Amino acid sequence: MKALVKEQPGKGLTLKEVDIPEPGEEEVLVRIRAAGICGTDVHIYDWDTWSQQRIHPPVITGHELVGEVAALGKSVRHISIGQRVSAEGHIACGQCEFCRTGQAHICRDVEIIGVDRNGCFAEYMSIYAGNLWPVPDAIPDHIASIFDPIGNAMHTVMAEPVAGKSVMITGAGAIGLFAVAIAKSAGASNIIVIEPNAFKRESARKVGAQCTIDPSEKNLNSIVLDHTDGLGPQILLEMSGHPGAIKTGLHLLRNGGCACVLGIPSKPVDNIDWAKDIVFKGITIKAINGRRMYDTWFQSQDFMLREQKAINKLITHRLPFGNFEHGFELLHNGEAIKVVLEMV
Amino acid sequence: MKALVKEQPGKGLTLKEVDIPEPGEEEVLVRIRAAGICGTDVHIYDWDTWSQQRIHPPVITGHELVGEVAALGKSVRHISIGQRVSAEGHIACGQCEFCRTGQAHICRDVEIIGVDRNGCFAEYMSIYAGNLWPVPDAIPDHIASIFDPIGNAMHTVMAEPVAGKSVMITGAGAIGLFAVAIAKSAGASNIIVIEPNAFKRESARKVGAQCTIDPSEKNLNSIVLDHTDGLGPQILLEMSGHPGAIKTGLHLLRNGGCACVLGIPSKPVDNIDWAKDIVFKGITIKAINGRRMYDTWFQSQDFMLREQKAINKLITHRLPFGNFEHGFELLHNGEAIKVVLEMV
Amino acid sequence: MKALVKEQPGKGLTLKEVDIPEPGEEEVLVRIRAAGICGTDVHIYDWDTWSQQRIHPPVITGHELVGEVAALGKSVRHISIGQRVSAEGHIACGQCEFCRTGQAHICRDVEIIGVDRNGCFAEYMSIYAGNLWPVPDAIPDHIASIFDPIGNAMHTVMAEPVAGKSVMITGAGAIGLFAVAIAKSAGASNIIVIEPNAFKRESARKVGAQCTIDPSEKNLNSIVLDHTDGLGPQILLEMSGHPGAIKTGLHLLRNGGCACVLGIPSKPVDNIDWAKDIVFKGITIKAINGRRMYDTWFQSQDFMLREQKAINKLITHRLPFGNFEHGFELLHNGEAIKVVLEMV
Amino acid sequence: MKALVKEQPGKGLTLKEVDIPEPGEEEVLVRIRAAGICGTDVHIYDWDTWSQQRIHPPVITGHELVGEVAALGKSVRHISIGQRVSAEGHIACGQCEFCRTGQAHICRDVEIIGVDRNGCFAEYMSIYAGNLWPVPDAIPDHIASIFDPIGNAMHTVMAEPVAGKSVMITGAGAIGLFAVAIAKSAGASNIIVIEPNAFKRESARKVGAQCTIDPSEKNLNSIVLDHTDGLGPQILLEMSGHPGAIKTGLHLLRNGGCACVLGIPSKPVDNIDWAKDIVFKGITIKAINGRRMYDTWFQSQDFMLREQKAINKLITHRLPFGNFEHGFELLHNGEAIKVVLEMV
Repeated sequence: MKALVKEQPGKGLTLKEVDIPEPGEEEVLVRIRAAGICGTDVHIYDWDTWSQQRIHPPVITGHELVGEVAALGKSVRHISIGQRVSAEGHIACGQCEFCRTGQAHICRDVEIIGVDRNGCFAEYMSIYAGNLWPVPDAIPDHIASIFDPIGNAMHTVMAEPVAGKSVMITGAGAIGLFAVAIAKSAGASNIIVIEPNAFKRESARKVGAQCTIDPSEKNLNSIVLDHTDGLGPQILLEMSGHPGAIKTGLHLLRNGGCACVLGIPSKPVDNIDWAKDIVFKGITIKAINGRRMYDTWFQSQDFMLREQKAINKLITHRLPFGNFEHGFELLHNGEAIKVVLEMV
Repeated sequence: MKALVKEQPGKGLTLKEVDIPEPGEEEVLVRIRAAGICGTDVHIYDWDTWSQQRIHPPVITGHELVGEVAALGKSVRHISIGQRVSAEGHIACGQCEFCRTGQAHICRDVEIIGVDRNGCFAEYMSIYAGNLWPVPDAIPDHIASIFDPIGNAMHTVMAEPVAGKSVMITGAGAIGLFAVAIAKSAGASNIIVIEPNAFKRESARKVGAQCTIDPSEKNLNSIVLDHTDGLGPQILLEMSGHPGAIKTGLHLLRNGGCACVLGIPSKPVDNIDWAKDIVFKGITIKAINGRRMYDTWFQSQDFMLREQKAINKLITHRLPFGNFEHGFELLHNGEAIKVVLEMV
Repeated sequence: MKALVKEQPGKGLTLKEVDIPEPGEEEVLVRIRAAGICGTDVHIYDWDTWSQQRIHPPVITGHELVGEVAALGKSVRHISIGQRVSAEGHIACGQCEFCRTGQAHICRDVEIIGVDRNGCFAEYMSIYAGNLWPVPDAIPDHIASIFDPIGNAMHTVMAEPVAGKSVMITGAGAIGLFAVAIAKSAGASNIIVIEPNAFKRESARKVGAQCTIDPSEKNLNSIVLDHTDGLGPQILLEMSGHPGAIKTGLHLLRNGGCACVLGIPSKPVDNIDWAKDIVFKGITIKAINGRRMYDTWFQSQDFMLREQKAINKLITHRLPFGNFEHGFELLHNGEAIKVVLEMV
Repeated sequence: MKALVKEQPGKGLTLKEVDIPEPGEEEVLVRIRAAGICGTDVHIYDWDTWSQQRIHPPVITGHELVGEVAALGKSVRHISIGQRVSAEGHIACGQCEFCRTGQAHICRDVEIIGVDRNGCFAEYMSIYAGNLWPVPDAIPDHIASIFDPIGNAMHTVMAEPVAGKSVMITGAGAIGLFAVAIAKSAGASNIIVIEPNAFKRESARKVGAQCTIDPSEKNLNSIVLDHTDGLGPQILLEMSGHPGAIKTGLHLLRNGGCACVLGIPSKPVDNIDWAKDIVFKGITIKAINGRRMYDTWFQSQDFMLREQKAINKLITHRLPFGNFEHGFELLHNGEAIKVVLEMV
């Protein structure tokens, strides 16, 4: 089969022929129909510092997928050949305290497909049956392929009810923009987006942001206060991982507000005004990792069934699998929001 | 009347004669019976950087009190002369969004007695009637005088249920130690205290800590893990404001755990591993300010009625008002936990 | 001034001349601009069993209002003559445990305007200053006059997050219909309404219900299951107080679901299948009374600023004060949703 | 092997020789060491109306157990021969919405051991490996055998934080009494128990109740109010399923209070004052079923490690397996709290 492989340390990915995997006893072989390119995939492509530490080539990349079941491991029940599925890419251990208490998303022994083991940028992938998510017919492939990033956004937005509240989102990459669309759909009264890329700010407005601001804007603070009764937003969704955004976000957050933080800084953060921006304001910070298994998937599916128009605005490119280089380039240059590779 | 006054910038406090205040229309004159010395009072005494910015002499200090009602402003109802009372020292505006939604503890226009206006280190104090808390007879004066710091501890402990959970408390000053006693009373299964002062560590054990550790201990991390099934504590109560304690606390906190943070660092904090110690672990941080008005007071009163033995272990000194210098000295040297000045 | 008075036991209300009230020390005189007629007012007009026990004539009725401040009691601050205001009609005691813990809506010594004391169906009304709600210019009088019932609906819908969930609403009177519009605005994925009156079912569809059902429909249960993945709705908003609706609602509610119950049955309810419809399903029931002071008011104001189109669909009649008889008649006959009387 | 079998419709159970079961592919064979007798087992013994509808003889009864792993199905990993284990007796489907969202305790396709399939009153039992709970050495067999009923009590008590609150418990059978001990350990400030059996009331006082009342007591309401500041308990734990207890409990519950209801009435309940006892008071009702998998088990284990003294007071009888008739008789007569049968 064809697969997109990180063959060895260094930049780039190679499209090459490899063996179709054999599903283990509790696994399922999925014929991939479409796969989204994640920012993480771009990091792996670029071979940044994080990738150099985490990735052990050779590995097939990719973790956002839709496909159909092609073969079953011998212990697998409740799944049938031909079924259309997406899949949770975090393979949790199932045994630890977190897995046994409905918190598999913070399992300490998690492995991630396309990172720690072979992923979905391939014609076939084998995956633990319990991680499959059957996809309703009403959700087309290109949308179903991105349950994973929509799930990240959903997990973040749903961590604190937004209905009737002012929401500030720092970082309008694909996940930040899905968060805009989800917050809008979930009744946020006001959505402010902080994002340096003009194309992404424009996308934010298309899916529901009332106000978008370039972080280099000098009057950023007063613009945000003007849009939030002078008190700051009630909810911060931190999707960038940028130290400046984290600090600006906490600083502007309203007393008693809630910051849901998903973005990952690449190194420790300095100069956090813990006293004034956190303690005295009595805020809550909720850290978000992955997707709740499988609460988030039910929520994402509901969103996909109701809001395809918004989602389609954010899937800016659908490319044949072979054109993957173009997809990575667009994302690298900030010229695409979500790129989906189509295998069939 | 006699009052303990910060007369001018610089170290020390002066016990001097001043006029008895006249209660305003909605105020009550309280004859002070006893008053606790807070760490904040020690800062004001010492005239540290914070005090230099916040305090505008002359001001009567002190904000932890019990007394009896001596006179009523003309609009005051529901209070009677002679009633024994403590009082919430945060004078909230009553008009802002926070005050109007049960969050007066994070009022943006709050004034604090003994800091922003005259306080309780005096024979009489005038205070807004709505801030009074009637004290049941079963609570003696020296205990009733410290509703305020017990309330800080209570607010922090009650922010996240501790019953059956492992709790780590960083910082065993008076509030940290009350937090130990409250967490014990609230069913924490395991209480670990990190504190450099040996006397305070010993006090922590007396009121319920199973394990106390000096932060200079090399094997601190492994000791904590040994006491928490190798996973770290489920709850962190950060009472120190020390940057190292904040970072150690977040680092050791279990995946999915909750950090309730009350301690106030004196300057911004550097080198927080936002990705590994916060985001990936999916933790929650709840920032705590003051006392909930007046949920926390009901909870503190219940605690005072049931756990006087533990509280008495932490009120290490009861001194006549005139001996205030000795009280400040003991606290300054870390030789006392809670010092109560007795006016009558 | 003119006022609509329940003069004595028996049917009807009398429009008559009475003295303009004198505001007490902490009260404000409001010149009423518009007032909504509530179902409760219809009960008082009709002199039903409840009214006979609760109402002590003579009393001026009415509790949904907007007006402008005409005079101030001598202790009143923070309010100015001419200010446009609505008002919370529950006059809470301010002293009880509930009032002191942000739960004034369940104060045990509450008095309600237009029920226990004079109300707003008059040219002027005097009310405790703390109960006033300043109204932004962008909200017109006829909408501002119904903060109270919109608040009831808001309190009910906000008691449990509806975003992305299936919601069933039993009872589509004015409050039930506002609940439809609010649930829609708050991101409910699916709204099912059970209501016998065809006009009200049609109104429900106009403001966001996907499915409306007459409770006499034989296949009611299977229709609801068909609309909810065979599992029943995740949330029940019980707005009718009808015993059959309560039981049908609990019976259909999904395992683990939440029922928010506002409707008031006129007598005790028989034949509740406590084991099967409540315990085994692991549901939660949240009982709703009044409006949270003043969280609900902030939420309702935000809704009024954003969703006037939906609200206008439900204010079916705006009548001059003098035409009040017509308003009561329309409501009595189920031919109106919300009727607003206009005084100016 | 020996097993206690409901052989056919009618009263009684038969101790007889049957084949040792063969573990299925994902199952484990457990050699039973001890097993608790539940009220449900007494119902099955007595062949009451519920049993007649639910039980399909022949079936081996019993669902509270501790044992050691004797053999493994061929797909089982993570479990080893000889391991000491208890087991969750609800065999959830693993596929439904509830199972996939951490709510397996309300799975719609659940089967219960000893009820719907063979149970643990036997020398061996085969059970799905995922349901096993490894038991720490520090918990002795007779305590480990009752994870199930302690878990019911734990699930109920933990549904709403009790620390510092007044708690009323209606029904002091074994589960109600474990709830007393757990509430005490979790910091309840005041525990009131309503129970007709004097022996059980005495047991309640032994494990932490401050006040116990016979429901036939004329002044019951005023006694409860006297113990709860005249406002009623803040939390109700309804463990009896008795219609009178449900109604008295709701009636006495404080405004804004929370009722956690586990008790199962044998038929629908009449005459619930939905308006006055539920809606107007703004209470919350949380229905409890089974044990959360496996949050409740972690909590129960922690409780067993810390509070064996209290638990031992409630395990009133430990009998050899062969003496089972005596155990059922004691329970039938209300002369025992918890009876444990010992197989080894």
